[in-house]
Amino acid sequence: MKQSQMLIPTLKEIPADAEIKSHQLLVRAGYIRQIASGIYSFLPIGRRVLRKVEEVVRQEMEKIGAHEMMMSSLQPSELWKESGRWNTYGAELMRIDDRHEREFALGATHEEVVTSLIRDEVKSYKRLPLTVFQIQNKFRDEKRPRFGLLRGREFLMKDAYTFNESFESLDESYDKMFNAYTNIFRRLGLNFRAVIADSGQMGGKDTHEFMVLSEVGEDVIAYSDTSEYAANIEMAPVVTTYEKSTAALKNMEKVATPDQKTMQGVADFLGHGLEEGLKSIMFKVDDRFVMVVTRGDHEVNDVKLKNLYSADIVELASEEKTKELLGTGFGSLGPVDVPEEVEVVADLAVEMLVNVSCGANEEGYHYVNVTPERDFQVTQYADLRFIQEGDPSPDGQGLITFARGIEVGHVFKLGKFYAEKMNATYLDDQGKAQTMVMGSYGIGVSRTVAAIVEQYHDERGITWPANIAPFQVHLLSLNSKKEEQQQLADQLYDELIDAGIEVLYDDRKERAGVKFADSDLFGIPLRLTVGKRAGEGIVEMKERVTGNQSELEQSEILSVVSNWLKQ
Amino acid sequence: MKQSQMLIPTLKEIPADAEIKSHQLLVRAGYIRQIASGIYSFLPIGRRVLRKVEEVVRQEMEKIGAHEMMMSSLQPSELWKESGRWNTYGAELMRIDDRHEREFALGATHEEVVTSLIRDEVKSYKRLPLTVFQIQNKFRDEKRPRFGLLRGREFLMKDAYTFNESFESLDESYDKMFNAYTNIFRRLGLNFRAVIADSGQMGGKDTHEFMVLSEVGEDVIAYSDTSEYAANIEMAPVVTTYEKSTAALKNMEKVATPDQKTMQGVADFLGHGLEEGLKSIMFKVDDRFVMVVTRGDHEVNDVKLKNLYSADIVELASEEKTKELLGTGFGSLGPVDVPEEVEVVADLAVEMLVNVSCGANEEGYHYVNVTPERDFQVTQYADLRFIQEGDPSPDGQGLITFARGIEVGHVFKLGKFYAEKMNATYLDDQGKAQTMVMGSYGIGVSRTVAAIVEQYHDERGITWPANIAPFQVHLLSLNSKKEEQQQLADQLYDELIDAGIEVLYDDRKERAGVKFADSDLFGIPLRLTVGKRAGEGIVEMKERVTGNQSELEQSEILSVVSNWLKQ
Repeated sequence: MKQSQMLIPTLKEIPADAEIKSHQLLVRAGYIRQIASGIYSFLPIGRRVLRKVEEVVRQEMEKIGAHEMMMSSLQPSELWKESGRWNTYGAELMRIDDRHEREFALGATHEEVVTSLIRDEVKSYKRLPLTVFQIQNKFRDEKRPRFGLLRGREFLMKDAYTFNESFESLDESYDKMFNAYTNIFRRLGLNFRAVIADSGQMGGKDTHEFMVLSEVGEDVIAYSDTSEYAANIEMAPVVTTYEKSTAALKNMEKVATPDQKTMQGVADFLGHGLEEGLKSIMFKVDDRFVMVVTRGDHEVNDVKLKNLYSADIVELASEEKTKELLGTGFGSLGPVDVPEEVEVVADLAVEMLVNVSCGANEEGYHYVNVTPERDFQVTQYADLRFIQEGDPSPDGQGLITFARGIEVGHVFKLGKFYAEKMNATYLDDQGKAQTMVMGSYGIGVSRTVAAIVEQYHDERGITWPANIAPFQVHLLSLNSKKEEQQQLADQLYDELIDAGIEVLYDDRKERAGVKFADSDLFGIPLRLTVGKRAGEGIVEMKERVTGNQSELEQSEILSVVSNWLKQ
Repeated sequence: MKQSQMLIPTLKEIPADAEIKSHQLLVRAGYIRQIASGIYSFLPIGRRVLRKVEEVVRQEMEKIGAHEMMMSSLQPSELWKESGRWNTYGAELMRIDDRHEREFALGATHEEVVTSLIRDEVKSYKRLPLTVFQIQNKFRDEKRPRFGLLRGREFLMKDAYTFNESFESLDESYDKMFNAYTNIFRRLGLNFRAVIADSGQMGGKDTHEFMVLSEVGEDVIAYSDTSEYAANIEMAPVVTTYEKSTAALKNMEKVATPDQKTMQGVADFLGHGLEEGLKSIMFKVDDRFVMVVTRGDHEVNDVKLKNLYSADIVELASEEKTKELLGTGFGSLGPVDVPEEVEVVADLAVEMLVNVSCGANEEGYHYVNVTPERDFQVTQYADLRFIQEGDPSPDGQGLITFARGIEVGHVFKLGKFYAEKMNATYLDDQGKAQTMVMGSYGIGVSRTVAAIVEQYHDERGITWPANIAPFQVHLLSLNSKKEEQQQLADQLYDELIDAGIEVLYDDRKERAGVKFADSDLFGIPLRLTVGKRAGEGIVEMKERVTGNQSELEQSEILSVVSNWLKQ
């Protein structure tokens, strides 16, 4: 393509609203433009990159026997009412009335539509398992759209759905999809982890998020420094084995701790380490009031608390209610002498402690030399804390490290959640009606483009992997007024195109400096510059990533470029 | 693909709501399913056809240097208010509020979005002309969605936009686009006409609709039986030259025509042909009242009337107002002795008549032996009637024939309509700000799929052109319980796939009759049947369209099939 005829508006300045590199660079280099908050247009070179990512996704979906469909974005509310999500999905689901005042949702996801379709069209076990997918714009009215393509309101997504006879069959479909996702993100050159994630209220057994490691990620991942293990930190079990303290027991005493309201403050005041104090926090777990006790250097993981009680809702108790129950506010809580209505549970680490401090349930006072079981009772000890860096990896291999991640994919065993609500059944080989077992799998295609940029850029611009770059070669003629340069560049352009190489030709009448800067910004992997030595048939080749340069004779250019691209 | 694993739900019965063949067949053969009125999902084989049509469109767009983009479906109302269409577009434009109560339109078309983008990003004549396009779902809340994909509310469209420096440059872009459209519809195997169409209120100079000839089309086309000339009937000028009657003039007389209210009734009653009576119709043209007089066998073309007066609004006058002005209702109107407020215009054919009849502006009476100019005055004679079959073609070549057409494409010179309203200017080579000149070009991609089926079907099902069919070859194993059949079919399947041929393999455990019927319904161009002679390595090949059959030896199958597909 000739750059003079293409819409690639570059910016020198960083857009004011762009906080992160992918947002800045994709806008500055003319890949995207904002239409409204969280809503973007893909300009021509952005569309090219998006299509390449799409195509990788499509190919890997087809390899596992998934069939592409295209469902509509307008979805009748009746379907969402069947699943119950019309009421539970909240303000993120965009809703619209048609001219006859029928309600529709704008597709945020397609579980309802696809379940309705399959229940109507698939009646026999002979047609199962079945895997379908589509690549399509989705709509979610995010409260705070930000980070450009990372958190948008209209975005390109690949969503896939599997329909199976049984949970065993679902496991197979899930594994296939998991492997396809792994292949996709590998082919896109991403440093990612498949992370064990919370399955939420779906009742699904397994769920993994595919996270691209990046400082700007909104999620924290705990992963092993030696194995493949990775989990959302809220999901990682702590497998540390604690040893019982052998210190001689001292007598519990109440001491004044005036104005000390934080764990660190109390520890400093009492002259001991954080790990020698108890942290006590009041939760409301469905209808009960529960005090959760951990070591002072640990943090309560409320997902684990929720799972311990199989609860629907876990939240911090209000300070008001806490005062009513314990006679004091949040700064002075402790497990000694709590009233019967309060259940005390403690992290496994607590059981091994002796002679520690804790709040005295009296403003300005703490107990010291407290020892569990002697000085307070615990209903249950369990793994209730967040994993920490340096903890052993739950799979027994290596130690845990933290990283931030951008969620680019999600694989999810739905089980019978939708099929039961929407009555999606099939006849088994005995002619008996059975509920289908489903899985749901998403990839944020446009978000993935941004994630790639987060991992592939330097101070001068984007550094695309060659298979995703909008073009393979960027051809520059430095001074198009010089006829020999113009001629050689034109000729090279035709030769490269004839050889099937995707080439962007900067034929603009701009200064060399502008052309070089734009070229670095775009991030096309290979640059060919026709400059002063055009008369001798000499062209400069430069690799975008390494900066390696070499001079090539006209006759060898095609073969050198082709070989380079093959690698 | 193996049919057993693919979602292709076929129906024996014609869906009750499907009036036309494309709707019936696309549903029956498992290409599409309705989600809601006018809203469809494309099932896997439907998606394949859609992608093939998409790809033809994309290739031809790229050939003329158009660059693909992807704009958003959510469009801020502010842009539509700038163009004025927020108020004028009406109920077809779907509107939605986001969670912050900002108004958005769901993209019915993208003139506003693209004009806003280009005005912000393109400042210099050096970047013009510029052509961009996208392929994307559009939303239009049709009052009466019908005919399946032909008139839907969410549908796939290719829309393109050109930005030029001048009207001359627009003409060039328009011609390129016109040729690309011609190539597209030719490659899709369609029998179509590029039809001169009404440019409506846009003030555009030229506009053509690409119409696929079909009995179910909603538009009537007048085309030449010998040349390329074709126009929407409302747009075709009448170039008939009429000869002045040489009959001796008779005296005008008023006669009673009791109970005769139609042209035919009056003519029969008076004993003359339709062409010997005058038809007089009252119109309201903006603020004037105009009586339009044509020959009794002609029909008034209100578009021509509108153009004659350069009017904004042309509508039939109310019967009430007509009575007020002329003292009688619609059945007895005529141009003799009309009051001054009524302007009389007449079609060119009228000028040549003598001794004709017309209404007497008195219920139950007509005049006979009326002669224009002697018995009534005409402000202006002009071409005011619809062209008719048998009229000479306006380009002077051949005679006019009528056909119905399905509009699949539209090319439109917008001129400065949007650019002026939205202030899209560029700096010319003198550094002076100039308004851009635009064109807009659409193809209904999903509608085109239906139009193809309208032209490619027989009593047994669809008969796709080979380049658009979901698969090139349909491989059937007739009795999968017979091991030799199963084995040979499996082997052939692998060989065909390895040869890069798109093959659908009916590996289902169904009766031969079911497989044949489904195969005919799908319309894949070439069928290979592995049946009784599998043991000898003999396979039957059948062409879907011609029904031609032949038996092939296993060894020759690949080469025969490949050669057939190349043709």
